[in-house]
Amino acid sequence: MEHQEALTSFTAAFIDELAEQGVRDVVISPGSRSTPLAILIHAHPRLKGWMNVDERSAGFFALGIAKQSQRPVALLCSSGTATANYYPAVIEAKYGRVPLVVLTADRPHELRGYGAPQTIDQIKLYGDHVKWFQEMPIPEYDETLWRYARNTAKRAVDTAAFLPQGPVHLNFPFREPLVPNIKQDHLWHYGKIAALDVQKEAVVSLTDGVYEQLANDWEKVSRPLIVVGPHRIPGLNKAVLALAKGLGAPILADPLSGLRYGLNGEENHVIDSYDALLKDVDIRKKLQADGIIRIGANPVSKPLTQYINGLNLSVYTIVDEAPEWRDPNHQATAMLHVSPVDFSEKFLRNVENQEDKKMGTEWLANWQKANDVAKDTLAHFMEETPWFEGHVVTTLNKFLQDDAYVFASNSMPIRDVDTFLLNQPLTLDVVANRGANGIDGVVSTAMGLSTGNKPTYLIIGDLAFFHDMNGLMVAKHYQLNVTIIVVNNNGGGIFSFLPQAQEAEEAFEVLFGTPLDYDIETVAQLYNAHYYKAHDVRSFEQALQQSQAQKGIKIIEAKTNRPENVQAHRKLWEAIRLRVQREINCDY
Amino acid sequence: MEHQEALTSFTAAFIDELAEQGVRDVVISPGSRSTPLAILIHAHPRLKGWMNVDERSAGFFALGIAKQSQRPVALLCSSGTATANYYPAVIEAKYGRVPLVVLTADRPHELRGYGAPQTIDQIKLYGDHVKWFQEMPIPEYDETLWRYARNTAKRAVDTAAFLPQGPVHLNFPFREPLVPNIKQDHLWHYGKIAALDVQKEAVVSLTDGVYEQLANDWEKVSRPLIVVGPHRIPGLNKAVLALAKGLGAPILADPLSGLRYGLNGEENHVIDSYDALLKDVDIRKKLQADGIIRIGANPVSKPLTQYINGLNLSVYTIVDEAPEWRDPNHQATAMLHVSPVDFSEKFLRNVENQEDKKMGTEWLANWQKANDVAKDTLAHFMEETPWFEGHVVTTLNKFLQDDAYVFASNSMPIRDVDTFLLNQPLTLDVVANRGANGIDGVVSTAMGLSTGNKPTYLIIGDLAFFHDMNGLMVAKHYQLNVTIIVVNNNGGGIFSFLPQAQEAEEAFEVLFGTPLDYDIETVAQLYNAHYYKAHDVRSFEQALQQSQAQKGIKIIEAKTNRPENVQAHRKLWEAIRLRVQREINCDY
Repeated sequence: MEHQEALTSFTAAFIDELAEQGVRDVVISPGSRSTPLAILIHAHPRLKGWMNVDERSAGFFALGIAKQSQRPVALLCSSGTATANYYPAVIEAKYGRVPLVVLTADRPHELRGYGAPQTIDQIKLYGDHVKWFQEMPIPEYDETLWRYARNTAKRAVDTAAFLPQGPVHLNFPFREPLVPNIKQDHLWHYGKIAALDVQKEAVVSLTDGVYEQLANDWEKVSRPLIVVGPHRIPGLNKAVLALAKGLGAPILADPLSGLRYGLNGEENHVIDSYDALLKDVDIRKKLQADGIIRIGANPVSKPLTQYINGLNLSVYTIVDEAPEWRDPNHQATAMLHVSPVDFSEKFLRNVENQEDKKMGTEWLANWQKANDVAKDTLAHFMEETPWFEGHVVTTLNKFLQDDAYVFASNSMPIRDVDTFLLNQPLTLDVVANRGANGIDGVVSTAMGLSTGNKPTYLIIGDLAFFHDMNGLMVAKHYQLNVTIIVVNNNGGGIFSFLPQAQEAEEAFEVLFGTPLDYDIETVAQLYNAHYYKAHDVRSFEQALQQSQAQKGIKIIEAKTNRPENVQAHRKLWEAIRLRVQREINCDY
Repeated sequence: MEHQEALTSFTAAFIDELAEQGVRDVVISPGSRSTPLAILIHAHPRLKGWMNVDERSAGFFALGIAKQSQRPVALLCSSGTATANYYPAVIEAKYGRVPLVVLTADRPHELRGYGAPQTIDQIKLYGDHVKWFQEMPIPEYDETLWRYARNTAKRAVDTAAFLPQGPVHLNFPFREPLVPNIKQDHLWHYGKIAALDVQKEAVVSLTDGVYEQLANDWEKVSRPLIVVGPHRIPGLNKAVLALAKGLGAPILADPLSGLRYGLNGEENHVIDSYDALLKDVDIRKKLQADGIIRIGANPVSKPLTQYINGLNLSVYTIVDEAPEWRDPNHQATAMLHVSPVDFSEKFLRNVENQEDKKMGTEWLANWQKANDVAKDTLAHFMEETPWFEGHVVTTLNKFLQDDAYVFASNSMPIRDVDTFLLNQPLTLDVVANRGANGIDGVVSTAMGLSTGNKPTYLIIGDLAFFHDMNGLMVAKHYQLNVTIIVVNNNGGGIFSFLPQAQEAEEAFEVLFGTPLDYDIETVAQLYNAHYYKAHDVRSFEQALQQSQAQKGIKIIEAKTNRPENVQAHRKLWEAIRLRVQREINCDY
């Protein structure tokens, strides 16, 4: 009985404080050693436990919930290799800056390192890929330990949520018996003292001196450019639009920047077709910036990175809320660790009087014109060209509701979203896992996103869909509503764009094509999903229409062809290149 | 061109040396950054590349091949979270002592830590869970680097294969372009010099003095016991049987020790029903040993561990080929790091003259009698009792071929195999993942085992089967022959045996039962598997019979019921307890 009181009081103090700190969702994978935590989570009035048998999927599902709720999400599993299955999601959370609180149960110390069953070394299991690791003590009935448990919950949530957001890991050893007593008196009051105010929001500001220096440096710039990569920072885009106006600068807006959607007239600065434009070396030369401000993560577009790499920049200011260095080109002239909103507002004030020194509207106008020509070419091309993977995005776009989530898988879908999902008044939330860009966990992350009860669309290739098929189980179990568009080209379509496709012909289909030849309709059946098949624009439109009348999991299989798809993309790029070359005559 | 020559020569030297050192199988997951290694593996005349899209499954598949082939198996994947998906299999390989050579491709140094796509920190990614980590250099066209590449391949294979066997990790940075030239002259000759003899087999021996001391200690022992846990050490069982004879000791033989199968008269020392016997505290008291020799990993049976824990042992000798301490009870009086075969032979010579001091045959005879009574009770019980999960094992046993593999999933199947798969003349190879005892990767490991072209049977619950369903893809693709018996009790059956089932009733079905309600037949359809359904002994026999006439993947769904299953197990243990209590009157 003493053991159970110790177990219950210590664990309840921790769990209650998680809830106090704003955690609402905990993704739980079944196990025995984690029983004390699982039962108390289940019993807590303000926590929702989501069961997910597959810990790899559970990790990404939690990541998706965190992206949707903008709150730290907790994860719980048992001891042993279960914990290692979280590793991919933990790494994505670190580089993608998503707050996760990973709770792993463990055997007590006397069983570790001595060959006991289901016992592995869980100390610092995720290495440097978590922001904080804490080994918890064996529970005791003790006021100081209760306060310690509460402070550790506070600190875990705070550390996960502080910038840069990311994962933390707490390891809990438990001795048997493992069942807590949820009828214990004052269950949620152990260790509760006056609330500790945890400062969750901090603005890192720069001194006025830094801004004056920056403004000085920017005096030299006549062809300014703002690049906004993937980010989900509230209020940033409004500030960036103002800054662009002040600087007379085009904004190259990543599809994951949020800057392309919900536009109502401010779009004249937002350039969305740069990926196609900058594929061509000659066009790059026509539109050379001499100063760049980059905000957010590295953009999806490889041509954009290559374009920047080739520029002779007098100023390249990278703004990052975290003390990290996201500059793979090693070109930055200023690496600013500051709130990007604060930066945009203050920098604007310092350069507002510089506008007369710029090239005026000509520089911006040329970008706009090139962008317009590219978009016009694309629009015509899509009408004239038979069904290929680009149509998946352009067609879907016509069916999207305001405020919908579009989750783009890595590999081809995010690139097609970059190319084909362009500026528009609809307020879309386009999301992807761009921390480490894996094709793992994509289904589960999208399912997590769909818990937000907004229309949710996932675009995914057949390989990534297969990789995380298990992620559908949680959607089936909790009757989530989500539309999954499986672009089925039977294999690794992205590799056909690489030199490997030509140069390693004999080995190519074996090593890179990797056709899986599996039947998507059977997968739909396995998870009680509605299934629709599309093989051209018309059937895809019908499928979208029909699916919107249904609830639950809706899987639309969009059949495509790898070689045709490469060809269509290349034709499109060539068409854009030719027309822009012809119609845009600037030369900076 | 210079770049390609450097890339090709360095990478080819490494790959060729892997083959020289005896590696035959490489499990490859598709990716771009790993192109140099993948293409050269594919081109090498003595290496077989197995494609597996899901890296988690690939890791366990490699583990299964290594268990089957008794050779180190290599793994290859691209950069990013792909690498993290190997973590569960790497951990299982470490604790299960299976030799794996993990090759991960990486971005070059200038892209690391600077926000480049698909770039994570892969240095020491698996922490202490690998035996060796090496960061490789950027390839160069250089004689010393070629020799270094060859030596690193040698050392990787050697380190993985040396006792205790386990995983090693090499991380390869590559710059673009990534395609090697497999038509380069003398492709497999870079850096080849006179062969370095790598000493792969070493016998760790103890001095005569240690044996004399041990023999002295064992003079006091009158009730000796030998416990043989999971192991796959060649030649060990013969030596142990001789030792048991010399000591007059019963051998408690784990189902994964190999000692229960292929018996032809030597079985009189081998006790196989101890798990059921030792569940009862009173029977434990009747059969108290005062000296134990334990060889192999910790046994599957929890009652056995508890029994040992309660003994007053004058000598407890643990023999381990590796300098590890597999003694979770902290009771050992001698922890010997020595070849168990060498130990068994030499120790026997030192104690042969002691036999007259033992209790003679009475001690052994009492164990044998208890064992016989337990087995007889079990045999009657199985006949009288309606279908429950125990019948899966006893029925399957009648259909097994000589030399077959039986892979038992963790959780219930391995425990049922312990209870129901008893001594017999058939030479079975019973295998499980008992390094960390996870329910992850079970299907993939069994698929790896089945590449050995012996009849392969997997017994697995519906949760573990779901967890690693992706593992079936490789079986479909390579047309492997395997029989999968899915014991479908729609959830986590093992938890019904735990106190959680009673004490946490309200939360139990949600947190532990976790029914997935999925249709096994649809899974079979998805992977082009033959499907059979069984709901009693008769239909299960028919399914086994029919399946044996087919090739490919054969899935037999054995429908069971969780509460009935717990009840049947408890009734069996009670029946054994009652009869043994009545018929065995010894009291040591």
